[in-house]
Amino acid sequence: MRLLFIGDVIGRAGRAAIAEHVPVLRQKLGLDFVVANGENAAGGFGLTENIAQDFLNAGVDCVTLGNHSFDQREALVFIERAPHVLRPVNYPPGTPGRGSWLYETKAGARVLVVSVLGRVFMDAMDDPFAAVERELSACPLGQAADAIILDLHAEASSEKQALANLADGRVSMAVGTHTHVPTADWRILPHGTAFQSDAGMTGDYDSVIGMDKDEPIRRFIRKTPGSRFEPADGPATLCGLFVETGADGLAKRVEPVRVGGLLAQALPA
Amino acid sequence: MRLLFIGDVIGRAGRAAIAEHVPVLRQKLGLDFVVANGENAAGGFGLTENIAQDFLNAGVDCVTLGNHSFDQREALVFIERAPHVLRPVNYPPGTPGRGSWLYETKAGARVLVVSVLGRVFMDAMDDPFAAVERELSACPLGQAADAIILDLHAEASSEKQALANLADGRVSMAVGTHTHVPTADWRILPHGTAFQSDAGMTGDYDSVIGMDKDEPIRRFIRKTPGSRFEPADGPATLCGLFVETGADGLAKRVEPVRVGGLLAQALPA
Amino acid sequence: MRLLFIGDVIGRAGRAAIAEHVPVLRQKLGLDFVVANGENAAGGFGLTENIAQDFLNAGVDCVTLGNHSFDQREALVFIERAPHVLRPVNYPPGTPGRGSWLYETKAGARVLVVSVLGRVFMDAMDDPFAAVERELSACPLGQAADAIILDLHAEASSEKQALANLADGRVSMAVGTHTHVPTADWRILPHGTAFQSDAGMTGDYDSVIGMDKDEPIRRFIRKTPGSRFEPADGPATLCGLFVETGADGLAKRVEPVRVGGLLAQALPA
Amino acid sequence: MRLLFIGDVIGRAGRAAIAEHVPVLRQKLGLDFVVANGENAAGGFGLTENIAQDFLNAGVDCVTLGNHSFDQREALVFIERAPHVLRPVNYPPGTPGRGSWLYETKAGARVLVVSVLGRVFMDAMDDPFAAVERELSACPLGQAADAIILDLHAEASSEKQALANLADGRVSMAVGTHTHVPTADWRILPHGTAFQSDAGMTGDYDSVIGMDKDEPIRRFIRKTPGSRFEPADGPATLCGLFVETGADGLAKRVEPVRVGGLLAQALPA
Ligand SMILES: [Fe+2]
Ligand SMILES: [Fe+2]
Ligand SMILES: [Fe+2]
Ligand SMILES: [Fe+2]
Ligand SMILES: [Fe+2]
Ligand SMILES: [Fe+2]
Ligand SMILES: [Fe+2]
Ligand SMILES: [Fe+2]
Repeated sequence: MRLLFIGDVIGRAGRAAIAEHVPVLRQKLGLDFVVANGENAAGGFGLTENIAQDFLNAGVDCVTLGNHSFDQREALVFIERAPHVLRPVNYPPGTPGRGSWLYETKAGARVLVVSVLGRVFMDAMDDPFAAVERELSACPLGQAADAIILDLHAEASSEKQALANLADGRVSMAVGTHTHVPTADWRILPHGTAFQSDAGMTGDYDSVIGMDKDEPIRRFIRKTPGSRFEPADGPATLCGLFVETGADGLAKRVEPVRVGGLLAQALPA
Repeated sequence: MRLLFIGDVIGRAGRAAIAEHVPVLRQKLGLDFVVANGENAAGGFGLTENIAQDFLNAGVDCVTLGNHSFDQREALVFIERAPHVLRPVNYPPGTPGRGSWLYETKAGARVLVVSVLGRVFMDAMDDPFAAVERELSACPLGQAADAIILDLHAEASSEKQALANLADGRVSMAVGTHTHVPTADWRILPHGTAFQSDAGMTGDYDSVIGMDKDEPIRRFIRKTPGSRFEPADGPATLCGLFVETGADGLAKRVEPVRVGGLLAQALPA
Repeated sequence: MRLLFIGDVIGRAGRAAIAEHVPVLRQKLGLDFVVANGENAAGGFGLTENIAQDFLNAGVDCVTLGNHSFDQREALVFIERAPHVLRPVNYPPGTPGRGSWLYETKAGARVLVVSVLGRVFMDAMDDPFAAVERELSACPLGQAADAIILDLHAEASSEKQALANLADGRVSMAVGTHTHVPTADWRILPHGTAFQSDAGMTGDYDSVIGMDKDEPIRRFIRKTPGSRFEPADGPATLCGLFVETGADGLAKRVEPVRVGGLLAQALPA
Repeated sequence: MRLLFIGDVIGRAGRAAIAEHVPVLRQKLGLDFVVANGENAAGGFGLTENIAQDFLNAGVDCVTLGNHSFDQREALVFIERAPHVLRPVNYPPGTPGRGSWLYETKAGARVLVVSVLGRVFMDAMDDPFAAVERELSACPLGQAADAIILDLHAEASSEKQALANLADGRVSMAVGTHTHVPTADWRILPHGTAFQSDAGMTGDYDSVIGMDKDEPIRRFIRKTPGSRFEPADGPATLCGLFVETGADGLAKRVEPVRVGGLLAQALPA
């Protein structure tokens, strides 16, 4: 199966990149399933129902979230009727929405997506290690799922790498999000899971993590409130990770994707 | 001028990569100046005088440190007689050692290196923004220095990118360290500074940030003390950033370097 | 019933205060049950089996722990055979020891003690709110227990007060620990639970949170490693909270206890 | 001299307590100088010019701030013309307002007030230890000032106690703020400085740190956004510390003040 995971989409520039590039990539790369992290799609903070729908229209199959899941309050409501949108699985029990879901591709393959939040340098959610363990036990790769995609939404590279190695051999790909910078450590872990510490953002890199540079720099220096953070509006780079799985659902091939905008371009041949 | 910055060297595996690859890279890339971050070189924690000397012997011109600067207590002493070793400049006044230094290459060019610690998710040091401003004012690129290399030792990508954009046009390269993962966002910023959010570690990537995987994973899951963290001892990937500057000291060319070990290899042509 | 909760006992000075004052207080105040937090009893870090036994000998019925539960590695073992020692209940499942226990006083009354760790500004444990909810549902005051004592081991006053108000009316007393400073907000909450944001430490207050002052001050100023932290060894103040419950197990009376050492003395009449 | 320091005033309830009690306390205690921390006076977040004026009218001589100094944006402007309002001294250079000031009482005595922000578990400001050192060197007690009041606005008791011991013998009183809970560790330090880890808030204690309980508890449990935090509006307890100094400006006497509301009352005889 051919999978694409796209990192945090930031504001209008990121959304434009989704609309422009996903249809092309789907075809060019022969993709079976596409996940995009949408936690910053609405003005940099959260996701609206309309934007989620635009993602689907562009060819995204599943939209994951993160620590900004409910910045747009409407997400607390529409997420209940949006099986293609996942908030992290380790929110407390009773949280609206779901944290993992088993999707079916057009060709009939079953793809499990799990979103999980780290806790290092972040608000304390339920144990991500226990949550991943539980999800993977409930839906084993090769038995209940033909492919499994794990979105590790976390700040610390140590926590991401620990989670990924815990899942190694049991998921097709474990890819980090949240730092808004793609990492150059894509590889296949010893037991067959494709990994990248962070997929990077899909946004304008002439920015501070996707936001117009001036106000973040000013706040670091001055420590006083100023204007609101606004997404930078230059051309976005769509950043993500491409994985091709074998019959066992594990990764045979992993390659970075960086299309458009300021970063060095990368596209699987 | 041709510059190479090498990210956090981890333990024995990282040191072996320095000894093996730096002499070759110096020649192959025609390097004028090489900086390596050595804060994890001694068993994963700090730097000893002997290791610093080994780095010099291998062709490193300057060793920078970070939040682990003084994990090896001898560093509080030998750093005073080691002008080629820099601890972050924003330690409080009176800290042993120096945080920036103007070096001279064999060809007589002047290279300023500045090391600075971020404060987001880290222990609170003196203001890194004010410190960088002060250092760059005291030694302007093109006047007092022919090249300037800025080591941004920080956790948060926002703080690194804010600092880099503050320095843009005033340093040859601003490169992050500390996350132990190379980023794929190398580029030249609008005003001519080469940038990469993190150079990545020089260590064994079959690990959790360079450490043998078992104990970090166990601690995340169990939350109880176990054995000591030990550097992973498989083959290391030397990770870094190559920059070529023009007559004005700004970057004309920037390329990632990843040599040996598990990561996808990268070497300037 | 007459209950005494004693805050974090620090090193030798704190242990001496336990040995000296607990027997006297038991008699003078007619105490039915005494809890002491022992997470710093062994040289400032953790608890040994011998020290736990000394506490029992002095008249302590239950020793609670906190974030330093397992600083003394032997605690991972002896805690299994020590029903009078509790580590926080929201360590992950599988952690040695227990987090709550139903004790019986000499007079045959049943006292439930629950220890829980906060997560704000602390390492991320399992959800303390869910844990408290679960423990109190399993052993309701007035039905399964005649008195309930809740040790809220947390840094932030907001988290302690939120937890205490959640438990209000369902426990006899909810008392904070961990900041090593007694608070002057002891009172009975609207639904009948006695509360104090922090019981304070049982240690030498001519110190920095119980430790000899010099090294902590030096580290704040210098940011470099120095000598080890050592408990201050002047006379300790035993700090705690006295509560008298009514027939329903809720608090009728709450008074602070501060005996010995440098703090203003307080003792229920 | 007779000094009163009043802890964080929270919203309308806190302001009412200032208006009601300060005039009475001024007279009853024969106060020469009154400081109140006003960082939460305006709806729980920041300070307006009108509220600052109300404080003065009630008999407060100096209003200190904290991490919420500029939550009300107008403070960035009016603080420049408000010498009776101090923001923490270790904001970066160039911040509007001042962090210390030498006031003159009606009787002609000189009182220096210094406000400083801690950095543990808080946003990183300039070094509070260096800042306190600098302020006290510039205006020595007994020479340039007849009394010195130090507001230690910090989260961690360790940092407050380290700062207070650094200042011991050089200031009349060093009193903590920010945790919104009064501590019961008021005393005179070995070299003559009156100290209390936290003065406590002046607000309604039937709350979570001064805020209506429901929303804070809900957020801890649910981790999703809800309504705004609103100050609790029951009767406030005015909390503070009373100090009487001798001819040398050091403390001869220290007593807690808790007037009104739910806490056990305390008033110097
Ligand atoms: Fe994001
Ligand atoms: Fe995020
Ligand atoms: Fe490092
Ligand atoms: Fe580091
Ligand atoms: Fe403690
Ligand atoms: Fe603790
Ligand atoms: Fe406050
Ligand atoms: Fe505050």
